[in-house]
Amino acid sequence: MSATHAPTPVRLTAVDGPDQPAVTPALEALYRGFEQELLVPLWTEIGDLMPAHPRSRAVPHLWRWEALRALAAQAGEIVPVGRGGERRAIALANPSLGGRPFATPTLWAAIQYLMPGEDAPEHRHTQHAFRFVVEGEGVWTVVGGDPVPMRRGDFLPQAGWNWHAHHNATAEPMAWIDGLDIPLQYATEAQFFEFGRDAISDAERTTPDRSRSERLWAHPGLRPLGSAPVTPGSPLLAYKWAFTDRALADQLAVEAEGYGGTVEPGHAAVRFTNPATGADVLPTIRAEMHRVVRGAETAPVRETGSSVYQVFDGSGTVTVGDRAWSVTRGDLFVVPSWQPFSARSEAGATDSDTSGGALDLFRFSDAPVFEALRLDRQEVTR
Amino acid sequence: MSATHAPTPVRLTAVDGPDQPAVTPALEALYRGFEQELLVPLWTEIGDLMPAHPRSRAVPHLWRWEALRALAAQAGEIVPVGRGGERRAIALANPSLGGRPFATPTLWAAIQYLMPGEDAPEHRHTQHAFRFVVEGEGVWTVVGGDPVPMRRGDFLPQAGWNWHAHHNATAEPMAWIDGLDIPLQYATEAQFFEFGRDAISDAERTTPDRSRSERLWAHPGLRPLGSAPVTPGSPLLAYKWAFTDRALADQLAVEAEGYGGTVEPGHAAVRFTNPATGADVLPTIRAEMHRVVRGAETAPVRETGSSVYQVFDGSGTVTVGDRAWSVTRGDLFVVPSWQPFSARSEAGATDSDTSGGALDLFRFSDAPVFEALRLDRQEVTR
Amino acid sequence: MSATHAPTPVRLTAVDGPDQPAVTPALEALYRGFEQELLVPLWTEIGDLMPAHPRSRAVPHLWRWEALRALAAQAGEIVPVGRGGERRAIALANPSLGGRPFATPTLWAAIQYLMPGEDAPEHRHTQHAFRFVVEGEGVWTVVGGDPVPMRRGDFLPQAGWNWHAHHNATAEPMAWIDGLDIPLQYATEAQFFEFGRDAISDAERTTPDRSRSERLWAHPGLRPLGSAPVTPGSPLLAYKWAFTDRALADQLAVEAEGYGGTVEPGHAAVRFTNPATGADVLPTIRAEMHRVVRGAETAPVRETGSSVYQVFDGSGTVTVGDRAWSVTRGDLFVVPSWQPFSARSEAGATDSDTSGGALDLFRFSDAPVFEALRLDRQEVTR
Amino acid sequence: MSATHAPTPVRLTAVDGPDQPAVTPALEALYRGFEQELLVPLWTEIGDLMPAHPRSRAVPHLWRWEALRALAAQAGEIVPVGRGGERRAIALANPSLGGRPFATPTLWAAIQYLMPGEDAPEHRHTQHAFRFVVEGEGVWTVVGGDPVPMRRGDFLPQAGWNWHAHHNATAEPMAWIDGLDIPLQYATEAQFFEFGRDAISDAERTTPDRSRSERLWAHPGLRPLGSAPVTPGSPLLAYKWAFTDRALADQLAVEAEGYGGTVEPGHAAVRFTNPATGADVLPTIRAEMHRVVRGAETAPVRETGSSVYQVFDGSGTVTVGDRAWSVTRGDLFVVPSWQPFSARSEAGATDSDTSGGALDLFRFSDAPVFEALRLDRQEVTR
Repeated sequence: MSATHAPTPVRLTAVDGPDQPAVTPALEALYRGFEQELLVPLWTEIGDLMPAHPRSRAVPHLWRWEALRALAAQAGEIVPVGRGGERRAIALANPSLGGRPFATPTLWAAIQYLMPGEDAPEHRHTQHAFRFVVEGEGVWTVVGGDPVPMRRGDFLPQAGWNWHAHHNATAEPMAWIDGLDIPLQYATEAQFFEFGRDAISDAERTTPDRSRSERLWAHPGLRPLGSAPVTPGSPLLAYKWAFTDRALADQLAVEAEGYGGTVEPGHAAVRFTNPATGADVLPTIRAEMHRVVRGAETAPVRETGSSVYQVFDGSGTVTVGDRAWSVTRGDLFVVPSWQPFSARSEAGATDSDTSGGALDLFRFSDAPVFEALRLDRQEVTR
Repeated sequence: MSATHAPTPVRLTAVDGPDQPAVTPALEALYRGFEQELLVPLWTEIGDLMPAHPRSRAVPHLWRWEALRALAAQAGEIVPVGRGGERRAIALANPSLGGRPFATPTLWAAIQYLMPGEDAPEHRHTQHAFRFVVEGEGVWTVVGGDPVPMRRGDFLPQAGWNWHAHHNATAEPMAWIDGLDIPLQYATEAQFFEFGRDAISDAERTTPDRSRSERLWAHPGLRPLGSAPVTPGSPLLAYKWAFTDRALADQLAVEAEGYGGTVEPGHAAVRFTNPATGADVLPTIRAEMHRVVRGAETAPVRETGSSVYQVFDGSGTVTVGDRAWSVTRGDLFVVPSWQPFSARSEAGATDSDTSGGALDLFRFSDAPVFEALRLDRQEVTR
Repeated sequence: MSATHAPTPVRLTAVDGPDQPAVTPALEALYRGFEQELLVPLWTEIGDLMPAHPRSRAVPHLWRWEALRALAAQAGEIVPVGRGGERRAIALANPSLGGRPFATPTLWAAIQYLMPGEDAPEHRHTQHAFRFVVEGEGVWTVVGGDPVPMRRGDFLPQAGWNWHAHHNATAEPMAWIDGLDIPLQYATEAQFFEFGRDAISDAERTTPDRSRSERLWAHPGLRPLGSAPVTPGSPLLAYKWAFTDRALADQLAVEAEGYGGTVEPGHAAVRFTNPATGADVLPTIRAEMHRVVRGAETAPVRETGSSVYQVFDGSGTVTVGDRAWSVTRGDLFVVPSWQPFSARSEAGATDSDTSGGALDLFRFSDAPVFEALRLDRQEVTR
Repeated sequence: MSATHAPTPVRLTAVDGPDQPAVTPALEALYRGFEQELLVPLWTEIGDLMPAHPRSRAVPHLWRWEALRALAAQAGEIVPVGRGGERRAIALANPSLGGRPFATPTLWAAIQYLMPGEDAPEHRHTQHAFRFVVEGEGVWTVVGGDPVPMRRGDFLPQAGWNWHAHHNATAEPMAWIDGLDIPLQYATEAQFFEFGRDAISDAERTTPDRSRSERLWAHPGLRPLGSAPVTPGSPLLAYKWAFTDRALADQLAVEAEGYGGTVEPGHAAVRFTNPATGADVLPTIRAEMHRVVRGAETAPVRETGSSVYQVFDGSGTVTVGDRAWSVTRGDLFVVPSWQPFSARSEAGATDSDTSGGALDLFRFSDAPVFEALRLDRQEVTR
């Protein structure tokens, strides 16, 4: 199932068309010469390679959490977790990316599933990663020996080249999503990977309520003088839901008092950042939580680069390019490059009548890549 | 010939193998469920996606300049240059990248050819580009209205979103190479493109010996106070051969006096940099000139990321991974990610006996991308 | 009392001495010529201007909080606060800095005192400032219209050019310390100052428990997407004691479990940083809180640049160069450039026997200036 | 002659005045209490310390080169150069800075003079320095073992902590100016100093036309791959006049063709920058060369921070605040903080009638300090 890197011939077909040279025997001969020498002219490719604006190979698509979780649970019964396969992770495959496990051309998104008492073995890789928990609890991710709890709403960044393992300390299975830059590193060919220990120690099997990283780094605006970040990403290994929730509620309260503070009326948002630098939490991945209050709708935004969203809470309608879906908790969808996106918060079929809940959307994207390479563009329609 | 972005099904085949779950009816049913929901498990893909070190889809390959130039000249006779096709550029297609015009997974390299008196129309694009001239002269690239001459050894960077056109002011055809980050921007989907004027003005058709950009910016360590760079790349639009040559000769002279200054004995090198920042000349492309004195051999180096080399002068042997070639002026070859590269300077079959010439290698790579994303690694065997 | 910028003659005296030219009539004539032309030779000055290491014009000195507060209270009775004088602030004058209100050559430290119901009028200035509260509460600082409460342990940065006023909303007087870079800006001559409104509005006279800045920015690692910092310093206008205290306690707990995390055994410390950048809270001032557990002693450190410390809690002995003092809550002392500093936590005369309290030291310094100019050096004796 | 760091009492005088508290016995008692405790209130000092805009302690002043050189030559006859005094350097003392050798509150400017065959011994210091040559030649500055020639128009930066010595290899005396940040480092107390060898080696006594640093780094936009800068300032140790002159002439030629490129009509300027970073040549000192064509006048500019100018060529009138002088080659003058400056190029009394020469002004300032600390402001009157 892995790609083969076999030699592939060049095939050029002379065609009549605007901007194409006249089809003559001389042109045919030239094209045979190109093929022979492994050459391809720009004039047959420019429309695809240099479009007026990004036309993504990916398409908007929605995956229902219910279906995803059911299949993951099924895998939990019959597919073991261990060295080699490494993780019971099942990835979104964008419908137009060749059947490959790529949510977008740069981003990987998967559901990971761990059975009661199971361990996922230790390894490290250059791919930058995170976990986000839409439901459940009971798993600890052990990062460099530091056990980090995972509970609904928690965001756990995992910068490249950190040793990490998981263990489920409870009697219930647990699912969460993994986000990585696997397709980007696959495209650029930057990947390194190492196996770690097959089993973590008893000391690492503890189940503290807060990781050491949180105790050192999760204090607002306060930098511990005795610690230095050792990897390019955030030294803070968990962004707990209580903080995120309160930050969003505070933004909306400030707005309600007439002082702005939100992205736009009824739309609060926070970005997960590296407390040591204020920059994005990972060198290649941006992660944010958005809250849209009941009845509000966000202005359509399009950006270079792609995003994956997961509905964390509430329900509503999301529009991506020419697609629109009613979404509810756990649903995942992708926004390809330069496709406009907006979200509207509204009561869903399964919400109780009395629900006052907002639509909470977790988002991750490849924006730091575009900013670092000076390729970022954004267009907002207000 | 352009890629189609059509929906593609997911196909999963359960196979017996180490690290794979047992092939059972339950597994088959699970895989059918994955296919149905557009999901792909990690455990069937991990070997391809997360290798122990980069295993490039590209392979080392050599293109002979003589063959390239002959085909380009043939194209000059039968393929017009004009709006739509935009450029008579013919790109290297790495043998294992699907017949696509990608020298490496991130880099485009093409020979461009302009007939006497011809113009290539004005356009701009987000793709970062450069020209490098291995032989000939007579073409001016007009960048934002500033005519920049092109002669053997000159390096002309072209940061994204600059308007540019070419005109051949002489009675001879001229060939040069274009380097761009087309595959990278294709992979990340960052591209914008705009047509400019169909013809440049008479004022721009002048043939000055130095562009205005050079007169403002090509003075060592001196920044003009009345000019500010307007694009993310270098404001200096030409790096003339006379400067590059002298810099390499000076390095070797300092080494000869016993004070080092070279990369290693007999190996001088300079990097083309943005004089306003000291950083790489383009946000996504590094460009360098290396000089290996007759008889010297460079230490094998492997790096994340890929390079394209063109022999500028001299002859010798280059080794890329398990391939080795005798090379001479104009020959182009690629070094895929993490493949070791070394070069040895030696008299070629076509050199005169009395030649004392060194092997001069022009190199460009995607290193700035790897550094910006903190994915750069290097290993030198000395 | 202000400095006069009157012309001052040059006076040169020829003296016998090592490294000095022989005293001859010719030398005397030369020196008269220098004086006439407003010139001074290096050879008479080099020892003072270019010492082997910093020899500060400032000396270590201690100010007792009790005396300071008593004088401030006395000023509260007889010196009004209003436009012109601007603030009832009384500054530490280092004993060897000419009687000027400079705690060190770069830092200003003052006690500010506000009577019940009093306002200090609005103004802004380029000097970077902060407030730190060692005792009391009841004053709000209104920054750009945002009322920020001040209570024991709170740290309030005030980056240059922000409008700000104070109002005491209670029936008790309140004292706190102000830290500014007044001497630095006086030395470099960078100062601008503007009067604001004489009275703040009723809306600004509210007494919220948290400022808007805190509600937007005081969430660990979370950046609000709808707000952008407008001044070069931190957008977070208050660092509440509860967070600082918990961060220090957490560090010591991690250390107690055997995982380090402190600066050195028994010595926890946090730096107040700008959450938007991770850098120092102000461009010219570093601020930190240190906790030394009972019985512990910090390793002597000397650094280029100067610091002012205030004892926040506990008692102990501090050593600065060849001076040592027993200190207790509120006491302030200065550490001049390159003078070694260490602190030992121990029960004070006024502590109860059962006190388990650590020595908490608030520190501010000019370190960001030295780092920005690449002049920072540090030496630790362990 | 060196400053004494003796204890100085605080002296406070209660005075009647606007914004001052009423003079009463209670106020007198309070002030005696302040004096006793080494305290100074803000309200007596605010006008001096926090002015509406910078009011420099320094004043505009002009030193005539002729007088300076004559005194330096006189010193050459009677004051030896050697270990201890270190340099035969004679510094400008601003008339209102207390007779101290400070051209401005942050900048040192001196004439240095070396007799035929003389050496100035090796040392290093944290003070950042440069040499600029207005006339003569024959001295080499040996920096880290690299002999760097000095000739009219050359600018030689000397970042802090580089070993350096001078030797005069000719039969003529030579004079040049030294610029350093001595007053800034004196104010901030950052200074370190070390003696080096008393004599440089024979190998270092060579008199190459180009230093090794120039051979490695003085190629426009080209970075040597085998060298890494080791100090915070520029690795290029000489900016030769030929390059500076050509850069200025090129700017004016581009302007003459109608394409701008100058600062303003008839006013070309270049900044000396670190080729490895594009930033200022030294962390604390900016250096520039300005050319004003005959008959042109620059727009008045005022900036935070101070500058020293030396007339390199031509003659004209310079205006600093409310002072104006006719100036000619070699004359030095200072522009204090926030004083407007402009220059007009015109034939001087000593110019020949046929002179077509422009006014060339060398300038150095403390601007990098202000930019690093976010304290820079500028106002141009056009």
